[in-house]
Amino acid sequence: MSKTDKSPTIIALLHGPDQPGLVARVSSWIFERGGNILHADMHRDAEAGVFFQRVEWKHPGDDPAAEADAFRTMGKSLGMSVKTALSGESPRIAVFVSKIAHCFHDIILRWKAGELCGDIVAVFSNHGELAEATKAYGLPFHHIPVSESKTEAEAEQLVLLRECSVKLIVLARYMQVLSKDFLDQVDCPIINIHHSFLPAFAGARPYHLAYERGVKIIGATAHYVIPQLDEGPIIQQEVTHVTHRNSVADLERKGRDLEKIVLAQAVRRHLEHRLLIYNNKTVVFD
Amino acid sequence: MSKTDKSPTIIALLHGPDQPGLVARVSSWIFERGGNILHADMHRDAEAGVFFQRVEWKHPGDDPAAEADAFRTMGKSLGMSVKTALSGESPRIAVFVSKIAHCFHDIILRWKAGELCGDIVAVFSNHGELAEATKAYGLPFHHIPVSESKTEAEAEQLVLLRECSVKLIVLARYMQVLSKDFLDQVDCPIINIHHSFLPAFAGARPYHLAYERGVKIIGATAHYVIPQLDEGPIIQQEVTHVTHRNSVADLERKGRDLEKIVLAQAVRRHLEHRLLIYNNKTVVFD
Amino acid sequence: MSKTDKSPTIIALLHGPDQPGLVARVSSWIFERGGNILHADMHRDAEAGVFFQRVEWKHPGDDPAAEADAFRTMGKSLGMSVKTALSGESPRIAVFVSKIAHCFHDIILRWKAGELCGDIVAVFSNHGELAEATKAYGLPFHHIPVSESKTEAEAEQLVLLRECSVKLIVLARYMQVLSKDFLDQVDCPIINIHHSFLPAFAGARPYHLAYERGVKIIGATAHYVIPQLDEGPIIQQEVTHVTHRNSVADLERKGRDLEKIVLAQAVRRHLEHRLLIYNNKTVVFD
Amino acid sequence: MSKTDKSPTIIALLHGPDQPGLVARVSSWIFERGGNILHADMHRDAEAGVFFQRVEWKHPGDDPAAEADAFRTMGKSLGMSVKTALSGESPRIAVFVSKIAHCFHDIILRWKAGELCGDIVAVFSNHGELAEATKAYGLPFHHIPVSESKTEAEAEQLVLLRECSVKLIVLARYMQVLSKDFLDQVDCPIINIHHSFLPAFAGARPYHLAYERGVKIIGATAHYVIPQLDEGPIIQQEVTHVTHRNSVADLERKGRDLEKIVLAQAVRRHLEHRLLIYNNKTVVFD
Repeated sequence: MSKTDKSPTIIALLHGPDQPGLVARVSSWIFERGGNILHADMHRDAEAGVFFQRVEWKHPGDDPAAEADAFRTMGKSLGMSVKTALSGESPRIAVFVSKIAHCFHDIILRWKAGELCGDIVAVFSNHGELAEATKAYGLPFHHIPVSESKTEAEAEQLVLLRECSVKLIVLARYMQVLSKDFLDQVDCPIINIHHSFLPAFAGARPYHLAYERGVKIIGATAHYVIPQLDEGPIIQQEVTHVTHRNSVADLERKGRDLEKIVLAQAVRRHLEHRLLIYNNKTVVFD
Repeated sequence: MSKTDKSPTIIALLHGPDQPGLVARVSSWIFERGGNILHADMHRDAEAGVFFQRVEWKHPGDDPAAEADAFRTMGKSLGMSVKTALSGESPRIAVFVSKIAHCFHDIILRWKAGELCGDIVAVFSNHGELAEATKAYGLPFHHIPVSESKTEAEAEQLVLLRECSVKLIVLARYMQVLSKDFLDQVDCPIINIHHSFLPAFAGARPYHLAYERGVKIIGATAHYVIPQLDEGPIIQQEVTHVTHRNSVADLERKGRDLEKIVLAQAVRRHLEHRLLIYNNKTVVFD
Repeated sequence: MSKTDKSPTIIALLHGPDQPGLVARVSSWIFERGGNILHADMHRDAEAGVFFQRVEWKHPGDDPAAEADAFRTMGKSLGMSVKTALSGESPRIAVFVSKIAHCFHDIILRWKAGELCGDIVAVFSNHGELAEATKAYGLPFHHIPVSESKTEAEAEQLVLLRECSVKLIVLARYMQVLSKDFLDQVDCPIINIHHSFLPAFAGARPYHLAYERGVKIIGATAHYVIPQLDEGPIIQQEVTHVTHRNSVADLERKGRDLEKIVLAQAVRRHLEHRLLIYNNKTVVFD
Repeated sequence: MSKTDKSPTIIALLHGPDQPGLVARVSSWIFERGGNILHADMHRDAEAGVFFQRVEWKHPGDDPAAEADAFRTMGKSLGMSVKTALSGESPRIAVFVSKIAHCFHDIILRWKAGELCGDIVAVFSNHGELAEATKAYGLPFHHIPVSESKTEAEAEQLVLLRECSVKLIVLARYMQVLSKDFLDQVDCPIINIHHSFLPAFAGARPYHLAYERGVKIIGATAHYVIPQLDEGPIIQQEVTHVTHRNSVADLERKGRDLEKIVLAQAVRRHLEHRLLIYNNKTVVFD
């Protein structure tokens, strides 16, 4: 196996105003510098006039980080917003959870099984119940109770998140609404799992609302967090059938399986740099 | 094959306040009169304290209609609401449609293929486009344009529905809201297909709203019509995945397949007497 | 809350030759002795002439076990095979696993979360990898390597299973075929998860076979174990879409989510006495 | 709107031995000649070392057909197999059917509704039942009974297919196996709908086999026809749940909805040039 095979691949996500020749320019730039494209996908939103691309390639040189920098400069000269990443990087992740444990266990077990291109480095909770389980997984547990004002708790969270250099926050059934202040100050994306098929049943107690309305299907939605509650860009949704025989407790049980899968899929796609946000929607390059 | 095998079965739907012994009393009554139960299903809503049952049996006598009458009397003596039907009956159905034709063709072709325990006897439309197609199917076409006031059109519809002895109205993408007056006067249930996963995107242009919100799944919902728009008891829902590549036109195309299937399933279940309504929800005895 | 509310319910599963009056006789027997039926469902296989019933009721007396005995006697007098259970019982379960851990973690976490009406009491493995994880869950770990002949290992397994009074064995990705001798001697049902949509891709390496065939959907199947490999009665199946982009590793990853859910659903239904076997098929009373 | 907006787009499907620079060369070629890429997707089978691409672009010139020719020449110089098409083209389609009519009606109604980028020009049947329905749709009906030898019937079919310049044959539940001779001589692809989730239940009577095996899910498979029965490259599969209550007739009814949708999706994708075949599998560029 040659050295190239072990070197990381470079992944770039671009988007910006559509114009002829973007695919050609990007791919020629890579090719002329000796790169070999492993995966390239694009999308044009004809209505909005926006161009999106994900491209992944292997560069023959010794310094893929510098090559990624050069790519970003080139992309910006085309009027594009560009993000790059190297395949070997493993962004640091914080998991926020309250008492309900299924998403917490699920995401940590997937990480331990090697399913995620990232590293869970800390668990934050407003309750103490999962302290022991967190430690059994070998992870630090930050128990930060949240009072009505939230200010103090969020300040403490922000300090710890910075200390850990967290690049992604996963809300694994964290039952607190994050303040606009927190969202302004935190400098990493946040993925939440909402236990309904949004936009139906936003807010609290969605399974109770679904039961009362008598729907025949329930769902779960993973989305990026924005200040407007449950209105962020949707990443992934899944659903399952329910019947008149199902109580609220049955809906909760069935929903747990959806929540685990949907949250994990969203986090995995984010970490594989498959997601682009625009107009409060996501482009998902699978 | 004995005569009994060719005689119709009796189907009863019961519901009312729960009390011990209901299953025993109903089944014993049938058994003691020589009946043989082919299918029995029950449901108890423990919270609401309501009992539901569907029972289907073969009666050895010559007059199943009289036996069904007797059953209703017995059921009422137990405090139950009871509906009965004989398996040979074929209720008369009117299909309402505007211009969009897929549900119209689908439900008529299913009827012609023998999938429905009922007879489509007339097509009503506020537009003329489907007149020829309706006639090609051998059905009368009632073209009744609807002006803003609706009063005149609805009066004409009611007269024709009564003349046809219609027992079920199917709104196969009929793009008019029926007035409360019409609903008060029509004496048969109405099943509508709504082109979204209710309660998300009630009202007009649901595919446009779904596109704007960036959902990853779209759906269709069949429900009984009540005066509150799109808020009637849900009978059936189905969904399908969509991606960022799908335009509104793609959503409409994918949705058409859902709409056809969901509407047909709801109509079939209604005609097989598998549906009970309470608390604005349905019990579906599959 | 009255005493009756805390007493266990009795659950009975019956099947046998169909004959008129079975529903009436069963429900009247329960009612006349003061019982109140909470759930009753039946099925008739008209072709095979077999009657199936699940009935669950509350008996007012002090000794529900004696009442269940009496019910079995009554059922047998009607020519039925009858099993009964009390809702408070918690059958003892052994989990068999090799090295692949996702179903192992999943079923144990569900048990700890209270999702299963049973108690996992031991883990058996032909490998040592999961010893520590098992102990962290507070469970005994029986490491029994399996040589080619299997005789010795299976003898040891049988002794331990009897010592633990195990009433259900769950094969959570146990990669050994159990011998006919073992199946003859073990006196409890065994539920296996097979990582394909049976009968497609029975036997070894189903994801590789699915990849080679180019299927667009993969699945998982939970079934009772019989001597014929992967041919036992199917309890539950689920599927997911795959594309040409998915490698065998992707299929395995996607399949893991199916396997966990399908196995858990099958085990839960078994423990809730919702499954009847006949003609190598299952009747599932949901 | 400029003239360019009304001109057809060119669509190309390429595949061949992978090598660095293919994406760059293809996109640069298009760009340098003034073309604007509307959609480009690629796939690399790393194991097999094969490169696949679908690219769709608008060429500013007056003769897109000549441009497509030039592209094919360029692609071949890169060692690629290339197919091209113009978006305005509407390939001629023949539908083969026996007696079972649901796929026949469905595909024709979709065509009439404008869902297919192609033209159905004739219906072939070994039975006479659908003659009248075909004529009502305004299509010629070729009733060609098939005797045991098939030779004569197939010769007649081949003559008519050539006279019609048919570019795609759709087997819409055509219950005859086409001979290897026929397949050798017919010079267009053939898409078949098989009423099972292949490779399970290949051959005749799949719903009966599914019923006997007691599966909990049934499916339908659209595939290209090759001489080996039911073993051609799979294009699309869909499934639905069934229960112990479902008879073979229920399976057939539920399956009909799958068959219609799966066949239509496969035909639509073929006509939109989204399908590439290799190693008896398909690459589907959605």
